[in-house]
Amino acid sequence: MTRKVGIIGVGHVGADTAFSLVTQGLCDVLVLIDENKAKADSQAIELRDMASLTASRVQVIANDYAALEDAEVVVIAVGPKTLLREDRLEELAETREAVSEVTPKIIASGFNGVIINITNPCDVITQVIQKVSRLPHAQVLGTGTSLDTARMKRVVGEFFSVDPKSVNGYVMGEHGESQFVAWSTVNIGGCPVSELAVEGEANWLQLESAVRGGGWAILQGKGWTSFGIATATARLVDAVLSDAQSVYPVAAWDDAKQVYIGQPAIIGKGGIVKRLHPKLTTAENAAYESSARVILDAFNR
Amino acid sequence: MTRKVGIIGVGHVGADTAFSLVTQGLCDVLVLIDENKAKADSQAIELRDMASLTASRVQVIANDYAALEDAEVVVIAVGPKTLLREDRLEELAETREAVSEVTPKIIASGFNGVIINITNPCDVITQVIQKVSRLPHAQVLGTGTSLDTARMKRVVGEFFSVDPKSVNGYVMGEHGESQFVAWSTVNIGGCPVSELAVEGEANWLQLESAVRGGGWAILQGKGWTSFGIATATARLVDAVLSDAQSVYPVAAWDDAKQVYIGQPAIIGKGGIVKRLHPKLTTAENAAYESSARVILDAFNR
Amino acid sequence: MTRKVGIIGVGHVGADTAFSLVTQGLCDVLVLIDENKAKADSQAIELRDMASLTASRVQVIANDYAALEDAEVVVIAVGPKTLLREDRLEELAETREAVSEVTPKIIASGFNGVIINITNPCDVITQVIQKVSRLPHAQVLGTGTSLDTARMKRVVGEFFSVDPKSVNGYVMGEHGESQFVAWSTVNIGGCPVSELAVEGEANWLQLESAVRGGGWAILQGKGWTSFGIATATARLVDAVLSDAQSVYPVAAWDDAKQVYIGQPAIIGKGGIVKRLHPKLTTAENAAYESSARVILDAFNR
Amino acid sequence: MTRKVGIIGVGHVGADTAFSLVTQGLCDVLVLIDENKAKADSQAIELRDMASLTASRVQVIANDYAALEDAEVVVIAVGPKTLLREDRLEELAETREAVSEVTPKIIASGFNGVIINITNPCDVITQVIQKVSRLPHAQVLGTGTSLDTARMKRVVGEFFSVDPKSVNGYVMGEHGESQFVAWSTVNIGGCPVSELAVEGEANWLQLESAVRGGGWAILQGKGWTSFGIATATARLVDAVLSDAQSVYPVAAWDDAKQVYIGQPAIIGKGGIVKRLHPKLTTAENAAYESSARVILDAFNR
Repeated sequence: MTRKVGIIGVGHVGADTAFSLVTQGLCDVLVLIDENKAKADSQAIELRDMASLTASRVQVIANDYAALEDAEVVVIAVGPKTLLREDRLEELAETREAVSEVTPKIIASGFNGVIINITNPCDVITQVIQKVSRLPHAQVLGTGTSLDTARMKRVVGEFFSVDPKSVNGYVMGEHGESQFVAWSTVNIGGCPVSELAVEGEANWLQLESAVRGGGWAILQGKGWTSFGIATATARLVDAVLSDAQSVYPVAAWDDAKQVYIGQPAIIGKGGIVKRLHPKLTTAENAAYESSARVILDAFNR
Repeated sequence: MTRKVGIIGVGHVGADTAFSLVTQGLCDVLVLIDENKAKADSQAIELRDMASLTASRVQVIANDYAALEDAEVVVIAVGPKTLLREDRLEELAETREAVSEVTPKIIASGFNGVIINITNPCDVITQVIQKVSRLPHAQVLGTGTSLDTARMKRVVGEFFSVDPKSVNGYVMGEHGESQFVAWSTVNIGGCPVSELAVEGEANWLQLESAVRGGGWAILQGKGWTSFGIATATARLVDAVLSDAQSVYPVAAWDDAKQVYIGQPAIIGKGGIVKRLHPKLTTAENAAYESSARVILDAFNR
Repeated sequence: MTRKVGIIGVGHVGADTAFSLVTQGLCDVLVLIDENKAKADSQAIELRDMASLTASRVQVIANDYAALEDAEVVVIAVGPKTLLREDRLEELAETREAVSEVTPKIIASGFNGVIINITNPCDVITQVIQKVSRLPHAQVLGTGTSLDTARMKRVVGEFFSVDPKSVNGYVMGEHGESQFVAWSTVNIGGCPVSELAVEGEANWLQLESAVRGGGWAILQGKGWTSFGIATATARLVDAVLSDAQSVYPVAAWDDAKQVYIGQPAIIGKGGIVKRLHPKLTTAENAAYESSARVILDAFNR
Repeated sequence: MTRKVGIIGVGHVGADTAFSLVTQGLCDVLVLIDENKAKADSQAIELRDMASLTASRVQVIANDYAALEDAEVVVIAVGPKTLLREDRLEELAETREAVSEVTPKIIASGFNGVIINITNPCDVITQVIQKVSRLPHAQVLGTGTSLDTARMKRVVGEFFSVDPKSVNGYVMGEHGESQFVAWSTVNIGGCPVSELAVEGEANWLQLESAVRGGGWAILQGKGWTSFGIATATARLVDAVLSDAQSVYPVAAWDDAKQVYIGQPAIIGKGGIVKRLHPKLTTAENAAYESSARVILDAFNR
């Protein structure tokens, strides 16, 4: 049985996701698709050149929508032409059109697996993809606040001099400006961070701002962000392929709010198995509602 | 710079720890020592036979205490002659003598790294080793409730149909009968398990009993336990070698109680960097105190 | 799609193969079967206890032949009662009976994948399994000289102070006394070892004897051998699951000689894709023929 | 003991090398340096954002030459401004100046480890770096034909439908137009490829041309090449850090020819332990000499 994954769009993020999957040997067949066919071909050759240099064995195919028929996961990473915009929602018009074009082609192959969307604005675009694809909500998800959560773990880990892997907790809401750190879920070794911090030492707003601004800082120095999101996506792909039943922060469909929005959920081979609804504080609940409105407004724009 | 690890005692647990380290490539040099020199030699040859079959590169040496001088970690896994005893404390007399014999030889090499003790009864024996070695308490730790915590994550994960890796929380106290699941620390995706369970569905005492009895069940079917504890130990070895600052449940020195006892602590290259003191319920605190007394009594026996 | 593997017989070798597969995350579902059901259950629990301690996600099931129906690989590792015998052929009567009992149960499940046999005498027993199973010869193979080849790489690597992974070449023939190092295939970095050695320095017969005697030395010190063979088997399992088309030394069916016998072959999802027939010297060809006769005689005994 | 690696130049190749090292957990501390400090900072933050998403633990530092003092390996990956040039030697003037500027800063830190050069034209630039650094020839090496060899294994593997990992052999000479496949070293499972091919079926010149032109094809579609070379470099870094004594094709100093030139050599913690001098055919020897002259001419230009 073959673990087959498709990636639509092989710019920085899509290509680095492929690079991460091949380096880690997380799948058996990888299908790369891009409107620039020469680019997809080149990425495929580069990845095949790695075959004798890694322990993994991945067959890499380029530009073949039909090959997605029996894929278990398709990652959508079609980018906008410009990255250095201040607000992720601004990219909407351009990427909405792009995913509306590629999604029917994925479905036309007979694909009936899980779609993981990276394309920004992530929450809105994930909803667009779900609508266009007509797949059940559970089978379509976005990377949402997965990278923001990783950034929060890095920021909190560095503040407390602790391995980010030992920081538990979630960033929730929009993958964008209206996101929030759900501090009530953040703990280290079972200790809420509020109790770990020496009185008056931790400026939570400042830490949260470092999380929210993390991507922007990287964008300015490097021109794009890809290593973090590619690695987060590789984790999600692996979770679906191995039917992990693991908890990850993703953009999941909230039926009450009628939006995809970042939150912890259990991921398995069918996509989103269950949302977890951590018990938030009143302020956190308000932030969640407010973020959901921002996403809904953008979707309806 | 070489990541060097010593293992004293290469019965099932010590050998499987070595097997796990080599399979994962977690160190560069491995020194195996056993009072049965032919056995240590054989284990070393077996592990060296793996060299062309794994991605890792580990030099394996046998029976050379002097080689421990610049080791960063020494694992003590000297076993008792008999395993199928009902209470771990019964092994004490025999293993106390064994570690009292090997510890001075480790120190005589000039070793000044971290000792990780697996030998049971783990908490008491860790204290014996610290005393004999005269190393600072931070540099000596026991695997303590690390395996029990892994078992709790398996039991809870199976109960809720969730990846055990997504279960947070700790088993604390003695690595033995008086241990307890610190349920107040156990959560999935930020949700305390008490809130996740459908009313009346979860029998916490029964789950806790499955955790506590896990080792005994394995022992009866297989004659010994080794895969779980070996893997947990490999994690701790890696945490020290990579100066991880990660949180693990270990037997750490509690100065107030004057015993080594299982609890979450931050582990780095110097051993125990910091204990985390999760906020327990009154009942959990009482269980901790009671377990500490059991350990102290055993030590003073 | 699930990478499912069965292991029949969970003594040292079968269990350590399972341990290696789980540590490396090389499959998604593992079915452990043993005539001692309590033992298989215990091994399964031990492996499941590892779930939160490794990156891999493997579902471990015990004692369910029916679960083999859609397995892609079944490893047969049923052992004899006694290990310390001088000649591997002596074990034949006992293990022939054992595999004749388990093989029909595997086939009865509807299994139509690849059988990898470890049970000794490996070459003969692989033939017995093929006959009883009625599977095509390509779908049944033995670990054969895979471990002997790994030992040769270790011995040659240690002699030339070179990483065994950089030693190419094969041990061929019986996994037993009549095996031989096909020295004409052994090279390092494209240099035949005969040219690398300083004149008169290398005693090839002595090196070969160290290879052949490697298992016996381990057996005497440790009582059994398992880490090397378990790791070699994990490689073969991975090659089948990932349809690797990789070359490994295995016991493959030689139609001309009418025996299974150790040699390099290409392994993929259907088992043995192709034997490679390296060009041997006259002496090596004679050794191969002689070894084939030893195996055939044993089979016909 | 810390496995510390520096990377000078974090454009595509340097950054992807860092990404590969962190994804695989091959080092403990990574120092990123770039004349564009904001870029190095951004890459470092991206890599640190991965901390909770991978099993590895790597501390990433930016823009600190002093931190190289106790590094064991420094990778030089300073690129030219333009990549789409037809001949790698054209880049020489620009990159010679760049490495002449950074190398003294590396040495000034007190660094006395191994330098691995990727910067093109690789062979010539490696020689420039050695001269400027005044380190022994053994401690300075280039990636040379390592990527070309990986490409040859891919091309040959695809031709014979065999896993590239099962193809042995080397591309030698310049990392550029004058390189050659040393076909006499190329074999699969101990069978020279000349014997494996059906009569008249293999067009060796065409295969060799696919190897030589591989990079150019990728460059045109993608604008740069990085995954292959980054992965090859990660292997070399690992070989030095783990004192592997493994054979890799690298640009090694040939004292007779007075150039750095691609060939198989044993790599360990001191860099190049030994060149292997595979026995070439007369035509291959001529190609080697001719390639050496091309490199020498370029160096003397």
